[in-house]
Amino acid sequence: MYFIKKTSYIGRQISCRYLKTIATSEPSKPDMKTAFPGPKSMALKKEMSMVHQNASTRAFFDYEKSFGNYVVDADGNKLLDVYMQISSLPLGYNHPELIKLAKDPRLITSLVSRPALGSFPRTDYADMIKKSLISVAPKGLSEVQTMLCGTSANENALKTAFIYYSAQKRGGKPPTPKDLSSCMNQQLPGTPKWTVLAFNGAFHGRSLAMLSCTRSKPIHKVDIPAHDWPISPFPRYKYPLNENIEYNKKQDKDCLTHISEQFKLRKEKGEDIAAVIIEPIQSEGGDHHASPEFFKGLQKITKENGSVFIVDEVQTGGGPTGTFWCHEQWGLETPPDIVVFSKKMITGGYYYAPALKVNEGYRIFNTWMGDPTKLIVLEKVVQIVKEQGLVEQAKVVGQFLKSELQNIQSTNDKILNLRGVGTYVAFDLPTTGLRDKFIDEACNRGLHVGGCGEKAIRFRPSLVYDKKHAEITLNIINEAIKQV
Amino acid sequence: MYFIKKTSYIGRQISCRYLKTIATSEPSKPDMKTAFPGPKSMALKKEMSMVHQNASTRAFFDYEKSFGNYVVDADGNKLLDVYMQISSLPLGYNHPELIKLAKDPRLITSLVSRPALGSFPRTDYADMIKKSLISVAPKGLSEVQTMLCGTSANENALKTAFIYYSAQKRGGKPPTPKDLSSCMNQQLPGTPKWTVLAFNGAFHGRSLAMLSCTRSKPIHKVDIPAHDWPISPFPRYKYPLNENIEYNKKQDKDCLTHISEQFKLRKEKGEDIAAVIIEPIQSEGGDHHASPEFFKGLQKITKENGSVFIVDEVQTGGGPTGTFWCHEQWGLETPPDIVVFSKKMITGGYYYAPALKVNEGYRIFNTWMGDPTKLIVLEKVVQIVKEQGLVEQAKVVGQFLKSELQNIQSTNDKILNLRGVGTYVAFDLPTTGLRDKFIDEACNRGLHVGGCGEKAIRFRPSLVYDKKHAEITLNIINEAIKQV
Repeated sequence: MYFIKKTSYIGRQISCRYLKTIATSEPSKPDMKTAFPGPKSMALKKEMSMVHQNASTRAFFDYEKSFGNYVVDADGNKLLDVYMQISSLPLGYNHPELIKLAKDPRLITSLVSRPALGSFPRTDYADMIKKSLISVAPKGLSEVQTMLCGTSANENALKTAFIYYSAQKRGGKPPTPKDLSSCMNQQLPGTPKWTVLAFNGAFHGRSLAMLSCTRSKPIHKVDIPAHDWPISPFPRYKYPLNENIEYNKKQDKDCLTHISEQFKLRKEKGEDIAAVIIEPIQSEGGDHHASPEFFKGLQKITKENGSVFIVDEVQTGGGPTGTFWCHEQWGLETPPDIVVFSKKMITGGYYYAPALKVNEGYRIFNTWMGDPTKLIVLEKVVQIVKEQGLVEQAKVVGQFLKSELQNIQSTNDKILNLRGVGTYVAFDLPTTGLRDKFIDEACNRGLHVGGCGEKAIRFRPSLVYDKKHAEITLNIINEAIKQV
Repeated sequence: MYFIKKTSYIGRQISCRYLKTIATSEPSKPDMKTAFPGPKSMALKKEMSMVHQNASTRAFFDYEKSFGNYVVDADGNKLLDVYMQISSLPLGYNHPELIKLAKDPRLITSLVSRPALGSFPRTDYADMIKKSLISVAPKGLSEVQTMLCGTSANENALKTAFIYYSAQKRGGKPPTPKDLSSCMNQQLPGTPKWTVLAFNGAFHGRSLAMLSCTRSKPIHKVDIPAHDWPISPFPRYKYPLNENIEYNKKQDKDCLTHISEQFKLRKEKGEDIAAVIIEPIQSEGGDHHASPEFFKGLQKITKENGSVFIVDEVQTGGGPTGTFWCHEQWGLETPPDIVVFSKKMITGGYYYAPALKVNEGYRIFNTWMGDPTKLIVLEKVVQIVKEQGLVEQAKVVGQFLKSELQNIQSTNDKILNLRGVGTYVAFDLPTTGLRDKFIDEACNRGLHVGGCGEKAIRFRPSLVYDKKHAEITLNIINEAIKQV
């Protein structure tokens, strides 16, 4: 019955010849053999439907064959990828320095002997966190909580805010015996009626609580019960910005007035707004930007109300906007209370201000609480991003991309509301139908691009997206837009 | 500015000498050099507090040095681990067949070129799912949804249930334009008032919605807003079972009556119970068992009300109870509607009945939707579990453990309510204080064991836990209980 046989350890003889099947260089340009998605992708989609829903599946990719900025699909098409797994790959596909991590014993051990991090961390866990997440922490936020994805990070950011807000209301004291007994029946005072303010067009995830903050598309929300939490408008600017200064300023002002009113209304109902959660750029909702003045005003209102200011940088964090954290561009006098990340940061999680630290065990907790394999990758990613100046590169390449798109825009009236910072560039098309047609035209020419909101095209290349990639991107856009 | 240098691909020269630092054999017995946790763990805990909360951190482990059923801590103590990262490691530490996966190119590619699975799966993704999750699917549930952890799986299981229930109420039709517009303001009819029935003592995770179903300990719930969802009692049996048949039968009956009443009450308020979620054995809540008759009765009531029956096997799934899924032991005539898993299944997710499939895109969706690296590990785990008959082994070893514990119990009145199936064995101590003292006594003797509920000890060894390990376990328990 003893399962462990006393054979020699086979792992020691690991040969790496298998890794030779992973691509090692980037194509010089897109190469399309079929329409996108092609027949093999369509066949795989049908096969997948036997075991797993596939309604959102667009195409199947051969990730071993993909490299750098280029993704290879099931039909052998090579596409320049400016969507990058919904903005989640910082260094593109199969970066050689990351592939080398296959020889790191921490990696395989962490994968097959996965710790319950909240109770039994690895001996080097604090060190891992320092070398990865802390080395790029937003100014003023020196502590971090790891989680598994953006949604679980946002959920726990809200919990942290509720715990803080409740403690403040008790004068800093721990929960009373009555709090502890009443919460088991989900009654006051232990279960408070605090709310979270979020915005029209926002996207913060798809768990039930985060859907109560998410308002990008009805199909995400319909049929799902929600918390009755307040909604405020997020500015909707006219472009170009320098020709619409007064209009846009009024947008800021009207939105801030609405927010102040919500704080007052909810306080009157005993449903205090314990936290405000906002994206620096509304992404899924349509790449809506707001001014530093708006964010500064929002932080001020939030602070005056004793509420927690949560900046959801799940999609903006990690460098694509030309600063490591997008909120650095606002010039805030004090840091946000919580900054949430995921996607390009490889792991989910959030930074928080010292005052928000939860000191009791098991309040912010779960079995896995993150994944060391992701921190090992992030440690290397951060090192490469710093050494190669990739955040600065995103800023410069993004400026090039945007200014060249301006030129295309000047000769084509289908490109509307061009906007963006860093490579986080977007434009609208006149209708949803034309936007979707544009995506098809671009993909069929070998540019893998994504949409957002009702009629926007969003660029989400990796940080290794360079001027030569931007030039190819622009050529294809120029061709595709003419077909729309 | 071009970052990708045309150097040869360094990955090809990966040497595996580093992997020699991973342990390759199991100690023959525990070996304690310090108290548990020792001074090095305590120092690391202090270091960790500078960058990450540590209130729940018990000890730091050296996972590279751990092997099989034995974990090595920061102080070099070797402990027989019957807690196994809160029941989440199916094959113990650093199983050689899993370590060999380091050479699998799918593994490193999936880690560094992580797909957004909902939109762009790997070409071999359906195949991966078939060889891992589908190969052990509960009878009657042939489709699966991958997620990242137990909580996100439960969240999406609830969403699936709400979507199904709403569609049924509409006669199977899709949401109306009014549903779609009203849900953006979180109002009826698009945002329904459906509820979920869960149980006293239950644990289903710690996101806001899952906390509304979780009722194991106040500290998890206090200060966090919740849905006002119904709560029913879960049977509380007297042991030994064969001496308390009438009492326990009445428990079942009273609980089922209460549940029926909740369905009626909520329907009257327009807050229909769209789903019932239950653990086969309440784990965090204190290892509370219920009879097959209770579960059959519960399924019957749920079905009669057109509601969705969700079995949360996050902790019970994967073999430790002596069947791959614990609910197999109930003899249900039809399968549950949804079975949720995580922990020993390496990945989170849920199986669902064909009728519950969500056919519209982006309703059950997120960026990552799981993680192929976990499926690659699971594929190998499942193969080993089947080849080596480890589920049957858990049954046999568990019977041995329980019968020997009965002998200890007969000479010591501190061991109460001995219960369990497979190695999923538990007993109570008279008080929380004595339980906690017992854990310390056992850990200091080299048995890493965990508690649950108010005063329970729970055994959660891996599936490679054998009779020899059970014998060492029993010896230490025998010594430790005398000190309590």
